[in-house]
Amino acid sequence: MNPALDFAHAHAARFRQELADLLRIPSISTDPAYAQEMIQAADWLVNHLNAIGLRAERIDTQRHPMVYAEWMNAGDAPTVLVYGHYDVQPADKSDGWHTAPFEPVEHEGKIYARGATDDKGQFFAHVKAVEALLQADGKLPVNVKFIIEGEEEAGSGSIRHFIDTQPDQLRADVCIISDTSMVNIDQPVIINALRGGIAFELRVTGPRQDLHSGMFGGTVHNPALALAEILSQLHHPDGRVAVPGFYDDVRPLTDDERAAINALNWTESDWQEATGAPAPWGESGYSLLERIGARPTLEISGMSSGYTGSGFKSIVPGSASAKIGCRLVADQDPQRVFERIRTYIEQITPPTVQVDLTWGRGFPASLVNIDHPVMQTAVQAYESGWGVRPVFKREGGSIPIVGDFQQKLGLPVVLMGFGLDSDNLHGPDEHFSIAMFERGIATSIAFLQLMQPELE
Amino acid sequence: MNPALDFAHAHAARFRQELADLLRIPSISTDPAYAQEMIQAADWLVNHLNAIGLRAERIDTQRHPMVYAEWMNAGDAPTVLVYGHYDVQPADKSDGWHTAPFEPVEHEGKIYARGATDDKGQFFAHVKAVEALLQADGKLPVNVKFIIEGEEEAGSGSIRHFIDTQPDQLRADVCIISDTSMVNIDQPVIINALRGGIAFELRVTGPRQDLHSGMFGGTVHNPALALAEILSQLHHPDGRVAVPGFYDDVRPLTDDERAAINALNWTESDWQEATGAPAPWGESGYSLLERIGARPTLEISGMSSGYTGSGFKSIVPGSASAKIGCRLVADQDPQRVFERIRTYIEQITPPTVQVDLTWGRGFPASLVNIDHPVMQTAVQAYESGWGVRPVFKREGGSIPIVGDFQQKLGLPVVLMGFGLDSDNLHGPDEHFSIAMFERGIATSIAFLQLMQPELE
Repeated sequence: MNPALDFAHAHAARFRQELADLLRIPSISTDPAYAQEMIQAADWLVNHLNAIGLRAERIDTQRHPMVYAEWMNAGDAPTVLVYGHYDVQPADKSDGWHTAPFEPVEHEGKIYARGATDDKGQFFAHVKAVEALLQADGKLPVNVKFIIEGEEEAGSGSIRHFIDTQPDQLRADVCIISDTSMVNIDQPVIINALRGGIAFELRVTGPRQDLHSGMFGGTVHNPALALAEILSQLHHPDGRVAVPGFYDDVRPLTDDERAAINALNWTESDWQEATGAPAPWGESGYSLLERIGARPTLEISGMSSGYTGSGFKSIVPGSASAKIGCRLVADQDPQRVFERIRTYIEQITPPTVQVDLTWGRGFPASLVNIDHPVMQTAVQAYESGWGVRPVFKREGGSIPIVGDFQQKLGLPVVLMGFGLDSDNLHGPDEHFSIAMFERGIATSIAFLQLMQPELE
Repeated sequence: MNPALDFAHAHAARFRQELADLLRIPSISTDPAYAQEMIQAADWLVNHLNAIGLRAERIDTQRHPMVYAEWMNAGDAPTVLVYGHYDVQPADKSDGWHTAPFEPVEHEGKIYARGATDDKGQFFAHVKAVEALLQADGKLPVNVKFIIEGEEEAGSGSIRHFIDTQPDQLRADVCIISDTSMVNIDQPVIINALRGGIAFELRVTGPRQDLHSGMFGGTVHNPALALAEILSQLHHPDGRVAVPGFYDDVRPLTDDERAAINALNWTESDWQEATGAPAPWGESGYSLLERIGARPTLEISGMSSGYTGSGFKSIVPGSASAKIGCRLVADQDPQRVFERIRTYIEQITPPTVQVDLTWGRGFPASLVNIDHPVMQTAVQAYESGWGVRPVFKREGGSIPIVGDFQQKLGLPVVLMGFGLDSDNLHGPDEHFSIAMFERGIATSIAFLQLMQPELE
C-alpha cells in the first residue's frame, strides 16, 4: 500500500496535461529571440510549484532566470536537491518534425514535443512525485529543494555563478538529476560518468565580400573550400582527432573499466538501428561504446557559406563558418583543448585566407562515485519503480553543472535518468514515453521514501 | 550635330528615374518566391517599350516571361537584335549591402541597386538610345528588335526553347549584348570570349536525421565532415582541379592568345584591390588573367549543414550540402564534365556516407569572331561614344545564350558591355556608373547610325 503511488496513478492524465502545458512554451535558451518565452516558462514553473505546496521563486540572472523551490519541513531528515533544466534545444518543423515541435502530441504511448525528454518531462516526474507525496501524506519524508535552470543548453553560466556566490541556498545531502537515458525501458540505468565539452565557431574569410565567380573564380582561395580543407585535416584517416596534444590529458581506461563498458548488451546492429547510418566510423582501437562514453570527440554541428537558398548563385563566397563541438573526458581541461585546436588550425591555415576562432562555452567531464550509500538507495528506488535492478553506465552526453555540484557543493550526484536512447533528444520528433514518465514518478516517490531511513 | 544625342543629354535625369523604377522590382529568377515580381518586371518593360514607340509584347513561357519588342520600318536597312535580361541575382540587405538592394540610391555618380549593372542598366541604355533616335529623327536608321529574357541567371531555358521553336522571330543581321564590363571607364572593351558553365548540388547523407552529439558523436561519419573531405579532394594542392579528365577537352591556348590575354594592364595589385583577398590562388602554370578568361574552374558557391543559427546545438547533422559551379572554356561539353565530376565524387566517397549529385544547369563556352565587319562598326561606335578605341578581351563570366545566337541563328554577336569590373555584380552594393549609362546610350546611338551605311 502506497497512497502517494495511488494518487499518482489516479491523476496520471492530469499530470500529462500539465506537462503538455509546459512543453508548449518554446523556451529555447541559445536563441536570443526567445528571451520572453524563457521568462514565461520560468513563471509557469514558479506558479505550478507554489500551487502544489512548495515555496517557489524566480531567480533572475544576467541571462535566463532560474526557478528555485523548497519544502523544508522535514526537520533533521536529509535534504534532497533536485536539479533540472527548463530550456530546450532549438527546433523548427522544417528540420524534419512530423508534428509542430511546440504543440505536444500523444501518439502510441509517447509524448512528442521539443523538450519532452530533455529535460521537461524528466524533471517534471520529480515535481509530480512531490505533489503525490504531499497530497497523499500531507508531508514529505525528507526536505526537498528544486533548482531548475534555463541555460543547460547554453553553457549553464548563471547557475554556475549562483553556486559560486550563494552556495548555501543549494546545500543538501544529495543531488538528483534526471537528464539521461537508458537503452530500453526494461533495463534501468544509472549513469556514472558524463563527458565535458567545448563549443566554438571557426570562420574563414578571404575576399572582402562575395565575388562574381566568372570574374574572380579560379584566382581567389574560395573560403568554403579553405574551410573544407581545414576541417578535413582535423581527423586522421583512422578517425583519431589530428590536433596535436588533443588526447594528452585523457585519463586512460583500465582493463576493468573497458570490460564494464563493453558488458552492456549493445551491438553494431543496435547502433545501426538507432542512427540509420550506413556503417560505423570513429577512433580506431576503441569499441562503439568506448567511443561514446569514454573517449573525447570533435564534431561539426553546423556549417554555412555563400548562397544556400533555392537555385544557384554564381559567386565565390566572402566567408565560410563551421560550428564545432568537442566532447571531453576526465582530466581534459576545456580551455587547454580549445587553445590546442586554435594553435593547430592557425598552423594549417594557408596564407590565402584568414581564420578566426570564437569560444562558445566549455565545461569539464565528471565521474560519479558508485560506492556512495545514496547510489545504493537509488538502486533500490529503481527496483521499486521498475521492478528491475539498474546497471551503471558511462554516458556520452554532458550535463555541464554536475562537476560544480560535486566539487563546489560537495554533493553526491545521482544521475537517475528516465529517458530512452531512442527519444531523439536534440533531433526532430523528440519524444518521452508515457510509461517512462509514470515509472519515473514511482521511482522518485520510492527514492524520497527510501532516503528517510537511510540517514536516520 | 546629333539631335538624338542632344535629346539624350536633355532627358538624362528622367532616363535615370525610369531605370530606378525598373530596379525597384525584385525580379529574382532563381527563387520561386519571386515569380510574381518577374511578371511585374516584364509588364513594366512591355508598357515602357510600347510607350516609346515600339511594338512590344510579353511572351509567356514555362517559367519566367520574356519581353519582345520591334521597330521594323527601316525597309531594307539591316536589322539589329538587342538582347538583355531583366532578371537579377538574389540579394538581401543582410548580405552586406549598405542600402536596401531594391531601393535604388544615387551616390557619388553611381546608382546602387541589385541589377543596376547586371543587366537592367546596361540593356536600358539601348532602350533609351532607341527612344532618343525616335524622338529626334522620327524614325530609326535601322530595323531594331529587342529580346529581354527573365532567366539569364537561371540557365536561359525558355529563350533557348524559343530559339529552337520560333527562330524566325529573332532573325537579324547582328546581335548586340551589353552584359559585360571593362577594367576602367577610360578604356572601353569588346569581349571576344565568354566561358560556359555548369551548376549542381552535392548532398551528403549518413544518419537518418540529426543526432545528439553526446550519444552518437564519434561513431557516425559526420556528413559535414564527409562533405568537407570530399570537397577538399576536388583540387590538387597546386590549384588544379583534381577530377580526372576535367581538362581533357580544353582547347589549348596558342602563344599569341596568351600574349594577347596578358597584354591587358591588370596586375596582382589590381586583383588585390578588386577582391580584397590576402593572396592569389589558383591553377599553377597560368597567370591570373588566363585563369579568369581562358581556363575552366570549379567553385563552391554555397554550403550548409546542421545548425547555423545563433548559439550552438549539440548535434551530428543528418546531412550536408554544397552548391558547386564550374566555368568552362571552348570545347568542353557541360554534361560530360558533370559526369566526370560525378564519377570521381562517387569514387572518393567512403562507405560510411551516401552522396547524391543534382544537376542544376549547363551551357557551353563561346568565342566571338573579331574579324567580322560589324565588330569594326562596334569599334567605331565606341570611339564615338567614348572618344577612345576599344580593345578586345576574354571575359571570365558567362552569358548562356550567346552560343545559341551564334550557332542556331547564325548571328554575329557583339558584346558591347557598359559595366565596370568594380560594379560588384552578384555581390552586395552592386552599382552602375551614371557616366557609363550615358556613354552607353551615346555608343548605342552611334552604333545604330553607323550600321546604316555599313550594308548600303
